[in-house]
Amino acid sequence: MRRSLITLADGREEYFFDSDETAATTDRRDVKDTRDLEPTTTASEIRYDTALDEWVAIASHRQTRTHLPPADECPLCPSRDGRQTEVPAEDYDVVVFENRFPSFADHVDPENGIQQTDDRRPGLGRCEVVCFTSDHNLPVSRLSPERVRLVLDAWVDRSEALAQLPFVEQVYCFENRGEEIGVTLSHPHGQIYGYPFVTPRTRTMLDTARRHRERTGRDLFAERLDRELADGTRIVTASEHWVAFVPFAARWPVEVHLYPRRGVPDLPALDAAARDDFPGIYLEVLRALDGLYDGPLPYISGWHQAPVRVDRDLASLHLEVFSIKRAANKLKFLAGSESGMGAFVNDIAPERTAAMLRDALAR
Amino acid sequence: MRRSLITLADGREEYFFDSDETAATTDRRDVKDTRDLEPTTTASEIRYDTALDEWVAIASHRQTRTHLPPADECPLCPSRDGRQTEVPAEDYDVVVFENRFPSFADHVDPENGIQQTDDRRPGLGRCEVVCFTSDHNLPVSRLSPERVRLVLDAWVDRSEALAQLPFVEQVYCFENRGEEIGVTLSHPHGQIYGYPFVTPRTRTMLDTARRHRERTGRDLFAERLDRELADGTRIVTASEHWVAFVPFAARWPVEVHLYPRRGVPDLPALDAAARDDFPGIYLEVLRALDGLYDGPLPYISGWHQAPVRVDRDLASLHLEVFSIKRAANKLKFLAGSESGMGAFVNDIAPERTAAMLRDALAR
Repeated sequence: MRRSLITLADGREEYFFDSDETAATTDRRDVKDTRDLEPTTTASEIRYDTALDEWVAIASHRQTRTHLPPADECPLCPSRDGRQTEVPAEDYDVVVFENRFPSFADHVDPENGIQQTDDRRPGLGRCEVVCFTSDHNLPVSRLSPERVRLVLDAWVDRSEALAQLPFVEQVYCFENRGEEIGVTLSHPHGQIYGYPFVTPRTRTMLDTARRHRERTGRDLFAERLDRELADGTRIVTASEHWVAFVPFAARWPVEVHLYPRRGVPDLPALDAAARDDFPGIYLEVLRALDGLYDGPLPYISGWHQAPVRVDRDLASLHLEVFSIKRAANKLKFLAGSESGMGAFVNDIAPERTAAMLRDALAR
Repeated sequence: MRRSLITLADGREEYFFDSDETAATTDRRDVKDTRDLEPTTTASEIRYDTALDEWVAIASHRQTRTHLPPADECPLCPSRDGRQTEVPAEDYDVVVFENRFPSFADHVDPENGIQQTDDRRPGLGRCEVVCFTSDHNLPVSRLSPERVRLVLDAWVDRSEALAQLPFVEQVYCFENRGEEIGVTLSHPHGQIYGYPFVTPRTRTMLDTARRHRERTGRDLFAERLDRELADGTRIVTASEHWVAFVPFAARWPVEVHLYPRRGVPDLPALDAAARDDFPGIYLEVLRALDGLYDGPLPYISGWHQAPVRVDRDLASLHLEVFSIKRAANKLKFLAGSESGMGAFVNDIAPERTAAMLRDALAR
């Protein structure tokens, strides 16, 4: 793998991650973004919610972001035939660049005039886009294992880099797929958020893990994995280094958690064997999802990593993939109970979801 | 107001709440549900999620619930012209009945075979439907103040009744409106959930209020209201007994909180003056919402009440109304950051939302 850094026309950073094969024939030093692109301003801030003891980002400049462009105007495709995109190259393997409409950025418009107070701060952080392939129409479940390995390398690299930023507290690599969940660009891609706070869900999880350790002396996440392995009814698939299961108290009609058998805090801490073993099982999980209703399933897939500075001993790297699709023609919406009270009602038993996913894999 | 109880054909309870005017001319003792309706079974359970220290409901029998029937098959309309609905009367003011497809019920199918363990229990509780009017097409924002007062009476009555059930820990009166958020019946109606646990969001709020009181000696919710009144920029409207504002750290593109000026734990604790003053300001808030984009806004409106048994001194009754609509033709989806990490990114500054709502009211 070779990593090359270029600078886009408006000053944003872009990283090419090339496979050894591509690197042997391609030199990214020639790549120039010749677009006439005005620098954007980022008027992002974070505000403290006193009722829930959580930070909320207010990013009003994002209202005008690109919304479902036609395929021939896709900004994530390579630049070809005179059309210039966010990737000024004729082809690429994996590309990561700073989001032009970020929720958090490493410099925030000073005209925004936000005084740093106890409950209001500039939205410092970093938001990156990860293009998984130059092929606009390829679902992630059909990527080659080699390509998924390269994506994993990019996630590891960026997780390490973002953790170095003094204002980043947690790095989140994730993919949203499907118009049903509001995806505004259909090109296969994910995102990376470097948050200026530990996210509410992670904080709740780590507080729970701390209490569990204080009470029992045991690791919460290791115990969850052991329980699923012992029970077996919710296992979807497993490999030498990874286990995919539907959790006992799944919130979503389709929900799969992927745990490494050996617990580690974050992606950079995965050893080479676990990294090499990842593409096979991840592709299997994604194929099971797409096999459920015979078509690309809308989903959110996100890596839970340890925070950058705190509670690293309590955290355990894992991936959570879930979908709002509760039947071939029905979606699960987050309405009054979920959005208003945080109380989830799942219409499908987790054991049944696991059986359906195993069936999809066996077909 | 007169309340009358009848029993539906499958044994569910139904309550008519009649205005004095209606009660003078109508006797509900004659009402009979003559449908041939098989009793349903409720295979609901709650499971404890060890990672987040929260309960999740699994209600697999709900998969077959009624989904967007045409208007002439609406089960919430009165029974007329030979067509029988959930309300076996030719007309009604406000009706409350047990949901035929409940997330929680007061008896759960024993064949379900759930042993009560530390992490798995029958989904005991109560789910009720509240019909606000017999007029299928009337938006709630156009109800008469007298009708809203009657709805409030019904909420108070049911909140008191559900709190008496030994397995109910929190009562939540709410309304989901709009297909955009998954509403399966368009007739103007709300729901009441009697949860067998304190909901995650309420628990977080009360834990925060407890820490705040321990640290400062002050009431968190009173302080939030005082701050908004002092600042003024996010106030939408106010009356003698109520204040409507967009919160400082709003999560949603449209979000309004309605606080009584005198803090009380729950709806039954509201005095007559606050009850009488409620319809005017609530209708004003709903008209502002519908005026934002010149059409019925999809929204969730929910009452935060004190739990039935615990932390009643920490809680403070208030209503939260919010919408996922972030522009006339755009929705805010809960994707990777919100659904995966609980980290909200709001694309509209709360001060701007408040100004837009005030403008809508002034039009």
